Amino acid sequence: MSDFSTTQIQLVSRPTGWPTPENFRTVEVSCGDLQPGEVRVRNEFVSVDPYMRGRMRDARSYVAPYELGTTIGGGAVGRVVESAAADVPVGALVLHQHGWTDAVQADASTFRVLPELPGVPDSVHLHILGMTGLTAYVGLTRIAELQPGETVFVSGAAGAVGTAVGQIARLLGAKRVIGSAGSAEKVELLTGKYGYDAAFNYKDGDVRELLAKAAPEGIDVFFDNVGGDHLEAAMAAFNDGGRGALCGAISGYNTTEKPAGPDNMANMITRGLTLKGFTLASYFHVAPEFQEKMSGWFAEGKISYDETVVDGIENTVDAFLDMMRGGNIGKMLVRVGEPAGQ
Amino acid sequence: MSDFSTTQIQLVSRPTGWPTPENFRTVEVSCGDLQPGEVRVRNEFVSVDPYMRGRMRDARSYVAPYELGTTIGGGAVGRVVESAAADVPVGALVLHQHGWTDAVQADASTFRVLPELPGVPDSVHLHILGMTGLTAYVGLTRIAELQPGETVFVSGAAGAVGTAVGQIARLLGAKRVIGSAGSAEKVELLTGKYGYDAAFNYKDGDVRELLAKAAPEGIDVFFDNVGGDHLEAAMAAFNDGGRGALCGAISGYNTTEKPAGPDNMANMITRGLTLKGFTLASYFHVAPEFQEKMSGWFAEGKISYDETVVDGIENTVDAFLDMMRGGNIGKMLVRVGEPAGQ
Repeated sequence: MSDFSTTQIQLVSRPTGWPTPENFRTVEVSCGDLQPGEVRVRNEFVSVDPYMRGRMRDARSYVAPYELGTTIGGGAVGRVVESAAADVPVGALVLHQHGWTDAVQADASTFRVLPELPGVPDSVHLHILGMTGLTAYVGLTRIAELQPGETVFVSGAAGAVGTAVGQIARLLGAKRVIGSAGSAEKVELLTGKYGYDAAFNYKDGDVRELLAKAAPEGIDVFFDNVGGDHLEAAMAAFNDGGRGALCGAISGYNTTEKPAGPDNMANMITRGLTLKGFTLASYFHVAPEFQEKMSGWFAEGKISYDETVVDGIENTVDAFLDMMRGGNIGKMLVRVGEPAGQ
Repeated sequence: MSDFSTTQIQLVSRPTGWPTPENFRTVEVSCGDLQPGEVRVRNEFVSVDPYMRGRMRDARSYVAPYELGTTIGGGAVGRVVESAAADVPVGALVLHQHGWTDAVQADASTFRVLPELPGVPDSVHLHILGMTGLTAYVGLTRIAELQPGETVFVSGAAGAVGTAVGQIARLLGAKRVIGSAGSAEKVELLTGKYGYDAAFNYKDGDVRELLAKAAPEGIDVFFDNVGGDHLEAAMAAFNDGGRGALCGAISGYNTTEKPAGPDNMANMITRGLTLKGFTLASYFHVAPEFQEKMSGWFAEGKISYDETVVDGIENTVDAFLDMMRGGNIGKMLVRVGEPAGQ
């Protein structure tokens, strides 16, 4: 049996404010002999996501903090290159949560074999067909309970989740979809490619004013990836009975001072508003319903997506930081091997 | 037909910050002849409630602002003294929304004839058996969706709504009920008379610390009458899946500067929290269910209440202001006539 070694990125200290390269280390790991029930996988794509910043903190949260000295966990797709498990054979495309590593050797039960869909790139299982798309779908259907004919506002709309939210909202019957993003290029993409009715660059001025202008008749649903001034602006723009699905608050992830909350919480009472935070952990049961719908929409050509790809496992930290600064359009991915057949 | 004149309190200017006597005037109104379909009612009790402060503002809200130069509308109970409407006879006990006046002449359709329940004072229809009790019941059952075995925190717990919430929560199966109030006397009342497991005086220190001490295992449900630091404290104390029913935010009703929002909104995501503001307007359909349950509990002697009574319609503004400052225990009422049979 051949030697199998991997290059992994580990957390060595907890960041205060913005993470720096010193918070991480790159290690070579030699995996030892393949044991019965194990497989060896070479990754193709590794995911970097905003929620990972939360796990770098040593704080009570919905998932345990990353332990210092261990590899950063998260989504990745790869191919099985050796197998001692009959149900996960060599050549299989697999999804797993072993995270920031170019390859992994582990028990076969920790990998999910993905269907090979004609014309579907492997990478989309890490976003629009995977957790990212599910996040958008759950937020709209289970958290905000979007109704046909409503107006939806999406903050951070040009990111992986945001681009999915806008399209799904439209497919679910939203009358008007409004998005915010951090550059003119992204704003152009939202209205041009993703079918947003209106979009604005939140760096152009006061978010509350920009949103009021983009949504003169108010908003019914808010899908929040940003928090802070975006949440406050949405609270001001909500129509009676408005609902906010709070998915992310990236504006506060790397700050050291406590972010100010919305100064207009009283609107919640007078307008009968609902704000509901969520993470996918409680909603995995929605995955089959989502996959059926999304694979249909995808096959019908109704779904667009963008990827911002960085090459090389050694550049994962840079990719993560760039994504946190808004350097990505659509899904930020690290490519650590050539996808089969490309 | 005798002459019928009334003494009414009208709004003449919109308060900025705390209302002052100059914002109101007392007027004598001569009602003219009784028309077919009308009745004349002498009030017994007039209600002063926190929500009225919102209606004094000229702002978009769930109910229209009071118009300047008109009588302050709100709940009152009285007796019919003359009637030109067969279904609302002389002597009937009636509930209405004609507000801050010692008497009223109006179409019979604007009055609801109340059942005469043995041993039930007329005044309780303005609180524990009326809107106040319904508010507590709706907030716990429809907004926060309280489950048996959960821990509930009530802010402003010694007020009219708060005293109802604590008792109803217990009757619905709450494991632990915690309340805040603004004096040692009120705290004593909460644990002594109203069955709260723990209570604290929010003037004794940092609300977040006081709540953490009173709820070492966290809270599942928050019924908010206060807002501000109480909301922030609840956000810090919530267990995963916690729900907040936002009913009032009295801490901010008379401030001229915008209140700071909670600095811990991100907990909503990581802990999967829900905040839901509400007013009764959308929940009147729950009234029959509430009335059946509450009249049962009341008859079984399971419900306590307190009233803080001020005499004389001319003292209504003072009573309102005193209530806003927390001068009441339980329901603040203005007595404008002697209840029949007392």
